[in-house]
Amino acid sequence: MTINYRLLATLACAFLLPATGFAADPSPLDVPAKALPVPTADISPGMQAFIGAPLNPNWNKLWKTGEEARAFADVQAAATVKTIPAMLERLNVKSEASIIDGVRVHIITPTEIPAENKDKVLIHLHGGCYVLFPGESGIPEALIMAGDGHYKVISVDYRMPPEAYFPAAVDDAVTVYKAVLKEAPAKNIGVFGTSAGGALTLEMVLRARDQGLPVPGALASGTPMSDATKTGDSFYTNEKVDNILVSRDGFCDAATVVYAKGHDLKDPLISPVYGDMHGFPPTILTTGTRDLLLSNTVRVHRNLRRAGVEATLQVYEGQSHAQYEFDDRLPESKEAFGEIASFFGAHLGK
Amino acid sequence: MTINYRLLATLACAFLLPATGFAADPSPLDVPAKALPVPTADISPGMQAFIGAPLNPNWNKLWKTGEEARAFADVQAAATVKTIPAMLERLNVKSEASIIDGVRVHIITPTEIPAENKDKVLIHLHGGCYVLFPGESGIPEALIMAGDGHYKVISVDYRMPPEAYFPAAVDDAVTVYKAVLKEAPAKNIGVFGTSAGGALTLEMVLRARDQGLPVPGALASGTPMSDATKTGDSFYTNEKVDNILVSRDGFCDAATVVYAKGHDLKDPLISPVYGDMHGFPPTILTTGTRDLLLSNTVRVHRNLRRAGVEATLQVYEGQSHAQYEFDDRLPESKEAFGEIASFFGAHLGK
Repeated sequence: MTINYRLLATLACAFLLPATGFAADPSPLDVPAKALPVPTADISPGMQAFIGAPLNPNWNKLWKTGEEARAFADVQAAATVKTIPAMLERLNVKSEASIIDGVRVHIITPTEIPAENKDKVLIHLHGGCYVLFPGESGIPEALIMAGDGHYKVISVDYRMPPEAYFPAAVDDAVTVYKAVLKEAPAKNIGVFGTSAGGALTLEMVLRARDQGLPVPGALASGTPMSDATKTGDSFYTNEKVDNILVSRDGFCDAATVVYAKGHDLKDPLISPVYGDMHGFPPTILTTGTRDLLLSNTVRVHRNLRRAGVEATLQVYEGQSHAQYEFDDRLPESKEAFGEIASFFGAHLGK
Repeated sequence: MTINYRLLATLACAFLLPATGFAADPSPLDVPAKALPVPTADISPGMQAFIGAPLNPNWNKLWKTGEEARAFADVQAAATVKTIPAMLERLNVKSEASIIDGVRVHIITPTEIPAENKDKVLIHLHGGCYVLFPGESGIPEALIMAGDGHYKVISVDYRMPPEAYFPAAVDDAVTVYKAVLKEAPAKNIGVFGTSAGGALTLEMVLRARDQGLPVPGALASGTPMSDATKTGDSFYTNEKVDNILVSRDGFCDAATVVYAKGHDLKDPLISPVYGDMHGFPPTILTTGTRDLLLSNTVRVHRNLRRAGVEATLQVYEGQSHAQYEFDDRLPESKEAFGEIASFFGAHLGK
């Protein structure tokens, strides 16, 4: 790290730091222990409850094999699936399992599709650290987007460990994208997802572009796991502040290592922040101020902007990782997905 | 705070939290002490040095009177003013002190103004907690904007304690705005500033609108001191993480109390996050992931969006309060002000 201390000394007076305040070799900043009250201003009671919940008790489950991860995923999936009938009803959508060119998908169709959305389609890539939310348990976010956004959504039930490892997830996403391209122009296709799904959204475009395919019309990448190398300042600043992911040494990054199965974690198809984003379509990014992946969301935003891409960032007060998608009935969820739907509306088909 | 625990229990399985993980009454989250390394990914060496600097040694100077604050401000101003000749030279701008309807200003003119900017003008409101950066020491950000953005800028040297107290700063801003309105249509006028200047940018529009004036064409509000009531989650999460403001119990909020001189701190003319933002012009907001005012920047962004305003947010990796404006030569400064200039270019005159 090269530091121009003369420059610092000259400019230190521009704010409040005296030149003598700079150490010769910046050491880590020691931050004392603190107690964080539950924020309430501009936050709904339901979201306050999510924000105020204790640390995820499963945060330090460090699966070492695809089989171990899958055993946990199956238990969790069984519980998640029970919530789906009520979601289908209140969001006025239908879901149908299907196969597209060998890839398992769920086709989500809202009761009403407005005229301007009838020739559009969204591809959904679910989250879960590349190991969680198999089968129908992966579709809740797709239901929200279809129901609140009034789009047809194809949710990709991509292969996960132990069935398959890197690059199975991105390959399955591209396979579905190629199939949809036969029925709709690229500009009419949106791609979205959260967490690993937010990363896969970016990875799918990198992979499609490398294969000479046209890029989709617009993307919505929610709090993407854009850097699997534990790089990103909020891995430190929001450690044990984010009550969902909790730590860079937690379940999610460990699960990504299982998925990678020895592959270089800095490969842009696992850590898309390192990808060349020139030529990407308009992209909306979503995160929260307590999100362990706040840095890796804003780093993607800056990389997109530096590549000249139209990119929009929304950051929600107090929210930890992905909490905007935890309950479609909360105003914060309506707001976040409302912004995403508006963004797709403004850019798809253009 | 009303919390629907049945709802939480139903939905907890949507991610990794078991229903039993929710406490009956959310208590503060205990975050252990930690050591933050200086982030380096995607950050220039010069900015790494700012980010890696120790805590501002003046963070807990708690001035109780305007006179005390001004004594500090004068010493700091003398040092800051020394940096200005070099800035004028490298940014190719001229600065001239003047008076507009009784208000002290500096008129900053770049050597070259492109044709599309010749009928535009920017009003600059400097930062400094309503007490710092009197006179010429308040103009560095205006020089950057004029030089890199190629706009004529009028920087308002608004009255500060002990010369005057609330609402002198916003009154002086409105006085200058009214005068400029006689020479340019509102849509050709942009307003910008950082910190207290970011708040004043919003306060000026609230005040102008209340007086029946048209709103400016666009705003750039940098890490606004939008809430002087110590409300906002990052006042806690980024406490002693932000190395500039450091704490909600630091110099800046204390100085704001001096400026308010007993006036209600929740008045939108001191805490503009509480203002009604319907009808605001397009606004770009800037902050950093370590900024003590991260929450109060994103809260303004959400309030603008909820009011239907076109609003854009840029968040810089690792940066504490206002560090994007500390050195105009750093790539992060060029990037942030480049985004702001592009935003003005896209919206002024429309």
